[in-house]
Amino acid sequence: MKNVFSIGETAKINNISIQALRHYDKIDLLKPSFINKDSGYRYYSIDQFIYIDIIKHAKNFGIPLKELKNTLTLGNMHELAENVRSYHVYLDEQIQSLHNAKERFEKVAEMIEYSLMAVENLGPYRRIIEERNIIKLSDYREVGNFEINSRLVEADTKKSGLEFGFESGYFIDVPTFINSGEEFFTSAYLVFMDGELPKQPLSSSEYIKSFIPKGDYVCITYNEHNKDERIKQIQGYLKENNIEKIEFIIVSELYDDFRNQSNEIQVFLHPQ
Amino acid sequence: MKNVFSIGETAKINNISIQALRHYDKIDLLKPSFINKDSGYRYYSIDQFIYIDIIKHAKNFGIPLKELKNTLTLGNMHELAENVRSYHVYLDEQIQSLHNAKERFEKVAEMIEYSLMAVENLGPYRRIIEERNIIKLSDYREVGNFEINSRLVEADTKKSGLEFGFESGYFIDVPTFINSGEEFFTSAYLVFMDGELPKQPLSSSEYIKSFIPKGDYVCITYNEHNKDERIKQIQGYLKENNIEKIEFIIVSELYDDFRNQSNEIQVFLHPQ
Repeated sequence: MKNVFSIGETAKINNISIQALRHYDKIDLLKPSFINKDSGYRYYSIDQFIYIDIIKHAKNFGIPLKELKNTLTLGNMHELAENVRSYHVYLDEQIQSLHNAKERFEKVAEMIEYSLMAVENLGPYRRIIEERNIIKLSDYREVGNFEINSRLVEADTKKSGLEFGFESGYFIDVPTFINSGEEFFTSAYLVFMDGELPKQPLSSSEYIKSFIPKGDYVCITYNEHNKDERIKQIQGYLKENNIEKIEFIIVSELYDDFRNQSNEIQVFLHPQ
Repeated sequence: MKNVFSIGETAKINNISIQALRHYDKIDLLKPSFINKDSGYRYYSIDQFIYIDIIKHAKNFGIPLKELKNTLTLGNMHELAENVRSYHVYLDEQIQSLHNAKERFEKVAEMIEYSLMAVENLGPYRRIIEERNIIKLSDYREVGNFEINSRLVEADTKKSGLEFGFESGYFIDVPTFINSGEEFFTSAYLVFMDGELPKQPLSSSEYIKSFIPKGDYVCITYNEHNKDERIKQIQGYLKENNIEKIEFIIVSELYDDFRNQSNEIQVFLHPQ
């Protein structure tokens, strides 16, 4: 039985590229068992094939190089078994991350669908909104740059393990809105996915981790074309229903149209 | 409010590299909304940021480029929601593949641990072995090249959606073994993971999909140093226990030592 194989034979038998084998040699992950001094040709022994199997599988599934090196340089088989088994930690992390991604994509789709439905409502409507985990930009000033600031905050909070929940908006000053219909922004907020907590402290003291309570809200949507009219409608609703004590009002950005986006005014009536 | 951003600003705000943005432009995934004819500088508008969000998320999670293009070139928001939602198919495939990988790594660890334990048994021992799904190389001839052939078969069957179960070996001729202790190989087998069926027909008619039944087996391990002695022991066991009607005997390769591998003889006694 032939026990030593050229790099080409080894590649073919193991369904792997020659380039990959050369790379594993270069990074000291798997050295050929024999190199012809005259020709410089690399040869692999048959007992190296199981290592190629392990590298192939592990690489496919994002096992870190460091772990692979640990596995392949082990002296005894018990440790090898233990090391191969420990890969499940990396695989579980990836599985969790894919589940989170599913949740996020579903959330984007829901946000778009909700937005498209909401903008068809002409008058004010009531709805129960679940509790929202938020990051509040407390010293929020420059309204026009919110889209930009919120992305910078998102990048920043991502490092802390928070995942953006695809909802953002502003808190507005209640008396000003009730009296004049002006939206005077007091702070901005970004909603984060449920149940996720920062793994590291947030890097800026300008952010406050908070929440918007579950409650009964009276809402209306508007875009730049119908803003004045819609705001008058919700002011009227609040007056007619003698709603005077209002803890907070928020303006949430909708996903109905990226070029002419609508917003939803959400007036908190009472907790639920 | 500033509505158009240089490629550098766009990259910074969206926590993405300039190279990535250039690449998306090149492959027509996301073209800048404006290019200065004199300088050639690219500019992005703020309403393109949501597309960058979608690309970033999708890319991270292996959504195919084709799907991404579909999403980004859609005319209406309902389709966009539907398309984003459809990504779950790709994510589920990846999750399944990671679960399979966990199972495979666990199986490697188990095989090594079983091998290390089994080689410590001196005499014959009995054990119940579960049903094994196998590919049988029916016209198996060249014993010495089994390691190589099996890898070629593995590569071939992988295309058919079969995953190697980290066990391989040979069927041996029963009368020859009982009478002379010679291992005359009649065919080779490769075990595949439970529950996986070929998605495509296997490409070679030389392979037969079959199974080794669950049953009570009498086993012994050997390596090249103790082979003769161990084979005598199991022959003795079969004689002493008047075991005459033997349907099949297999020799399974162990994972105790890649340089001086042991094998386990498995004599099928009766189904269970």
